[in-house]
Amino acid sequence: NLIHGELESFKKNVDVFFLVVMGNIVFFLQAGFAFYESGSVRSKNVTNALFLNYMDTSIGSLFYLLCGYALAFGEGNGFCGTQYFALVGLPYDRMAHCFFQYTFSSTAVTIIKSSLHERCSMTAYFTSAILLSGITYPIVSHWAWSSVGWLSQLGFRDFAGSSVVHAMGGSAGLAAALMTGPRIGRFERNGNLNHIQPHSIPQATLGAFIFLFGAIAFNAGSNLTISKSKDGAVISLVCLNTLICVASATTTSLFYQRFCTASGRTIKNWNLINMLNGSFTGMVVICAGCDQYPPWASLVVGCLGYFVFLLVFKAMQRFQIDDATNSVSVQLGGGYFGVIGVAIFGSDGVILSPSKSSAYVLLVNIFGGAVIIIFSFLSILLLYTILRHFNLHRVTAREEKIGLDLAIHNQAAYNVQDVKIDCIDSIESISRRSTAKVQPSAGSHYRLRRMTSEPHIIQAWRKCVYVYLIALLSFSYVIRGLFLMVPHKFANFSL
Amino acid sequence: NLIHGELESFKKNVDVFFLVVMGNIVFFLQAGFAFYESGSVRSKNVTNALFLNYMDTSIGSLFYLLCGYALAFGEGNGFCGTQYFALVGLPYDRMAHCFFQYTFSSTAVTIIKSSLHERCSMTAYFTSAILLSGITYPIVSHWAWSSVGWLSQLGFRDFAGSSVVHAMGGSAGLAAALMTGPRIGRFERNGNLNHIQPHSIPQATLGAFIFLFGAIAFNAGSNLTISKSKDGAVISLVCLNTLICVASATTTSLFYQRFCTASGRTIKNWNLINMLNGSFTGMVVICAGCDQYPPWASLVVGCLGYFVFLLVFKAMQRFQIDDATNSVSVQLGGGYFGVIGVAIFGSDGVILSPSKSSAYVLLVNIFGGAVIIIFSFLSILLLYTILRHFNLHRVTAREEKIGLDLAIHNQAAYNVQDVKIDCIDSIESISRRSTAKVQPSAGSHYRLRRMTSEPHIIQAWRKCVYVYLIALLSFSYVIRGLFLMVPHKFANFSL
Amino acid sequence: NLIHGELESFKKNVDVFFLVVMGNIVFFLQAGFAFYESGSVRSKNVTNALFLNYMDTSIGSLFYLLCGYALAFGEGNGFCGTQYFALVGLPYDRMAHCFFQYTFSSTAVTIIKSSLHERCSMTAYFTSAILLSGITYPIVSHWAWSSVGWLSQLGFRDFAGSSVVHAMGGSAGLAAALMTGPRIGRFERNGNLNHIQPHSIPQATLGAFIFLFGAIAFNAGSNLTISKSKDGAVISLVCLNTLICVASATTTSLFYQRFCTASGRTIKNWNLINMLNGSFTGMVVICAGCDQYPPWASLVVGCLGYFVFLLVFKAMQRFQIDDATNSVSVQLGGGYFGVIGVAIFGSDGVILSPSKSSAYVLLVNIFGGAVIIIFSFLSILLLYTILRHFNLHRVTAREEKIGLDLAIHNQAAYNVQDVKIDCIDSIESISRRSTAKVQPSAGSHYRLRRMTSEPHIIQAWRKCVYVYLIALLSFSYVIRGLFLMVPHKFANFSL
Repeated sequence: NLIHGELESFKKNVDVFFLVVMGNIVFFLQAGFAFYESGSVRSKNVTNALFLNYMDTSIGSLFYLLCGYALAFGEGNGFCGTQYFALVGLPYDRMAHCFFQYTFSSTAVTIIKSSLHERCSMTAYFTSAILLSGITYPIVSHWAWSSVGWLSQLGFRDFAGSSVVHAMGGSAGLAAALMTGPRIGRFERNGNLNHIQPHSIPQATLGAFIFLFGAIAFNAGSNLTISKSKDGAVISLVCLNTLICVASATTTSLFYQRFCTASGRTIKNWNLINMLNGSFTGMVVICAGCDQYPPWASLVVGCLGYFVFLLVFKAMQRFQIDDATNSVSVQLGGGYFGVIGVAIFGSDGVILSPSKSSAYVLLVNIFGGAVIIIFSFLSILLLYTILRHFNLHRVTAREEKIGLDLAIHNQAAYNVQDVKIDCIDSIESISRRSTAKVQPSAGSHYRLRRMTSEPHIIQAWRKCVYVYLIALLSFSYVIRGLFLMVPHKFANFSL
Repeated sequence: NLIHGELESFKKNVDVFFLVVMGNIVFFLQAGFAFYESGSVRSKNVTNALFLNYMDTSIGSLFYLLCGYALAFGEGNGFCGTQYFALVGLPYDRMAHCFFQYTFSSTAVTIIKSSLHERCSMTAYFTSAILLSGITYPIVSHWAWSSVGWLSQLGFRDFAGSSVVHAMGGSAGLAAALMTGPRIGRFERNGNLNHIQPHSIPQATLGAFIFLFGAIAFNAGSNLTISKSKDGAVISLVCLNTLICVASATTTSLFYQRFCTASGRTIKNWNLINMLNGSFTGMVVICAGCDQYPPWASLVVGCLGYFVFLLVFKAMQRFQIDDATNSVSVQLGGGYFGVIGVAIFGSDGVILSPSKSSAYVLLVNIFGGAVIIIFSFLSILLLYTILRHFNLHRVTAREEKIGLDLAIHNQAAYNVQDVKIDCIDSIESISRRSTAKVQPSAGSHYRLRRMTSEPHIIQAWRKCVYVYLIALLSFSYVIRGLFLMVPHKFANFSL
Repeated sequence: NLIHGELESFKKNVDVFFLVVMGNIVFFLQAGFAFYESGSVRSKNVTNALFLNYMDTSIGSLFYLLCGYALAFGEGNGFCGTQYFALVGLPYDRMAHCFFQYTFSSTAVTIIKSSLHERCSMTAYFTSAILLSGITYPIVSHWAWSSVGWLSQLGFRDFAGSSVVHAMGGSAGLAAALMTGPRIGRFERNGNLNHIQPHSIPQATLGAFIFLFGAIAFNAGSNLTISKSKDGAVISLVCLNTLICVASATTTSLFYQRFCTASGRTIKNWNLINMLNGSFTGMVVICAGCDQYPPWASLVVGCLGYFVFLLVFKAMQRFQIDDATNSVSVQLGGGYFGVIGVAIFGSDGVILSPSKSSAYVLLVNIFGGAVIIIFSFLSILLLYTILRHFNLHRVTAREEKIGLDLAIHNQAAYNVQDVKIDCIDSIESISRRSTAKVQPSAGSHYRLRRMTSEPHIIQAWRKCVYVYLIALLSFSYVIRGLFLMVPHKFANFSL
């Protein structure tokens, strides 16, 4: 009847509200990537890292909306969708879905560059971002998340994208890192590894905190609706599981690095970057099954996830593949383990409900995750084969040595130095001219201040502040008086 | 009946929820301004930039709540409202609206200072912020957004404030910049322009990412409700349009700067700051019609918006008006174009539905936007005429050269240098005293670490970590056991 | 009937949505603490400050979920709850509550370390975080917020945790600061005070902006539901009150520092850090009664709150207790005053409704706040007595002098210096080899850029950009054409 219709329409609106808020927070993950990465590179490549991150939100959104969303969620066959190209004909009630899905796409796309920093050419990243956001990621997400997708039909489970988003991006990053080659000086002839220090820990940590902020929204938003009867329960569970898994992975990485790393080149310590990587792995691992795990399983999955990260990390070093921010280890390792983990530890997994069907799901997830990884790997491999042929895949050695900030962007990230000197110069030249002698020592600005504020002005101002305080208090009193006269509405309001 | 009443009351609550969440994210835009601007100034004025931004949220909110909201949304005549001064008598169901509108006011007010950095006196900014938040912005928003406002009655369209918020602020900024004059050394006698480098690109980019985050909420929140039947559709469209317009403007600025800038003083490159300005222009331009444009129009409007920005930008340089962060070009240029654009490209605009009424709306928007800009310009001009008379509009040349951080705030933004030296000093003095020799070279901290952790402690700790890992696993096992005993609730939960 | 059931189920879901969004934003407060604190310490302890902040979200969440939530909100007696240990048996409809409460716990726990920076040992912080998140905070929150808690039964009022969260944390911080002792060099033998400058004002201010962002969600979220009939009104009032109180405290601190500070060691100026502390105090003070105050009372409470802060601040200096970020003054002073203020200025307080029952509530709040503070103080005192016995409470003097970043984490926060030099070296070595001579002067990168982009490439690219622009416009045109053919759905949509 009427009220039912009104309720249904309201429900749809609240679903839109849910998608928009969650999508917006997920969108902010872009800042997380930007700062984690720009903090992790050397100070000569910071502008470049920020530039790539900001740029891909634009390029990515244009191409995702142009053809990505159509391939992913338009009506179509099991391989890809064929509707809504350039948003033509997209009904209003799918627009919020489209916006939300774009934020996932932007997350998936941005991962590839995480491994390529400090040497990637603009052409290479442009084309990669277009390929991933326009074709590769949409097709993969169609497979797994569209109701007609072939993986989805097989029973593939990936709630929030451990494989679809993270392993997809990590695999693309691996292909690109392989084809681009390591940074100059990263590996020595004799196989030694030079550790390249992040230039700003606060920047990198800012990124990590934004990841934490976004991870909850990423997983909770993946439910896509809030109006169906089970939604509240699922979203609650998702939040707790995300929290637990991240905490577990972080704690494990913390203690492992402090107490268990074989002494040698990597030193036992309370290592921040390692802890952050552990934490990110936790975020990636939990995605696939955050709606399924009982809390204890999140704990176990987070803990194991860190060791999978470690394994891939060691393998990358062994094979001398240079990954500027360990994104391959986090995203590919963590993502693939996540999609397997859900079929093992999830509430329908082989441990909690051992049966033929759960074993089948495990196989489907192992197989499906692998297909996604291979598909993504091959698409980037193909692109880079072409780029390498035209020698466009990488900046020149000279540009790399100068740093991409000056060589490509004509903009150093920091211009603090000169100004400081300039500032002290000014102080000196002023002090020479002024009668009061000012020296640019630690305490000099105190004296400076005293010079610039004349006593009589202070007197005048002091009066002002008294007036301000009196006015504030009397104003409040007046308001209160007025307030009490207003009948009932305020004064008798009780909770 | 009963249920209907319950649903209505619930709807109102969800509307409050919507306004609070969106308002809160819009409020966070203040941080966007703070960091974009503090990153864009020289390192001697960083504390000042942050100070002004933080301060105006406070001063602005006091004066907006004191009289701004009353002028803007109290019952009244076509020129301004006359109710709810100092929030007296404000009913509870308008409080969320008041909060949300304050966040818009804070955005509008903060724009003026964007052009004034590095030379603005505290008195000037205090009085400007009070004037704008208490009087100018409220009156303008009453005109356009209150149901009885004269522009609103004429049919003026500005959904989310291209003119009311952005052009208003940009125009105020222009007036203030004119009256304040350029920074020392910005323009040479012979007309040459000295480019003042931003001191920290990561800081500026942080601001830009927060803008991206806030822009969606700014436009979506402008719908004010989520419970009416069309709200879901409108908000969905708003999000997509915002995304597309920003992407379009960003991409256009990106390629234009790289390939089309006449070589000369400005060099062709992948310029980050220019890209950010393009992106901001996109955010400003889309506001007026984000509920109206079909997606393709957002694309066009974003692209054209960048060229409008460029035009104003060139004009500002030609007339030697110094704008520290290009805010006049972005906000005034973009904002005025936005309010015209909606009447051209919007779904009711002259292109999509050519008719007398749409042509009339176009005229009203051109005229209304101009009136808003002139009103804002004049109000600030008047204030600055007084300020100039008392010579309070600008810091002294000496203070400007020293930098406002030391001269006014007695607080340098960065104190890294000395500490580093101090740190190395300590290391050296320690190494002199200790038997093991430590040198402050690149690898020194490795050796330091080894000194501070004695072997036998490591042994003890290693045991601890084994115990931790075993405990973690067995704990999980126990929990799982307990878990399985809990009947049904968890174990049989399926989605 | 059926619809009623559907509406009820939907309401529950929206409540979950509310808790998840608000909880997520409150969770982001962790970043606020991280950056405010890491910006406030010296540059040799930045990594440590960030590490501690990131770590305690993990450790804290594990122990809060393990036993904290059970003690706080499980069924039980007046002293503590005894259900849901390790989340066993936690029903789905309490999970969102659990997640939300965790975010409050994480805020409470993180406060303790704010006073301990630059000298706290890892063991001390680990154990403190475990104690606070697992036992102390949960018990305190049970007292005040669980329906069976003894303070709650007495009529204790603390809406959003002025005492439960803030004074609890501040008191723990005071105990820890007393037991740990001041930083080396902070107080001289003769009683003089050395002011330790924050190393990065932008970082500290970033934290402050995140606090502003989180404060609204913290207080609004404390209502826990959005579906009950009064919720909308309460939440609206909460937002406005928070805004007003913060603005009032900020403004008071601003003017006080500028005009009223006795000249001497502390100089009159527009002090940023002092303003931020005033602002934080406002956030803390308002918590207890943000649902009760009429707006004018928020103004008064914020103003008075700053003077309470000042009082505690002076006392801390007098007694030579070293608090790295003034957190004790803010959280303990502000928090305790807040919980008293609500009983005085609240709508049921002794001023607005003078009666026996309101006087009784005042006494309960004074007493209850004191009990909470003492309980928290003693629990940390006990812990530190043990830690001091084993000499684990503090890093060694050598580690403190070197800085915790290198001594404990083996990771300097900034590695900018060396790279810059390296960069200029590369430029020089390149210029020596190349025919064009490049000097690393201010304008050098301009020349560099010209070197790297050959003219004929530019020609080719210019063509590309023309093609791009033409493609963009014609693409839009085509879309528009298609668009117009789609019947009704888009074209006739009007708002």
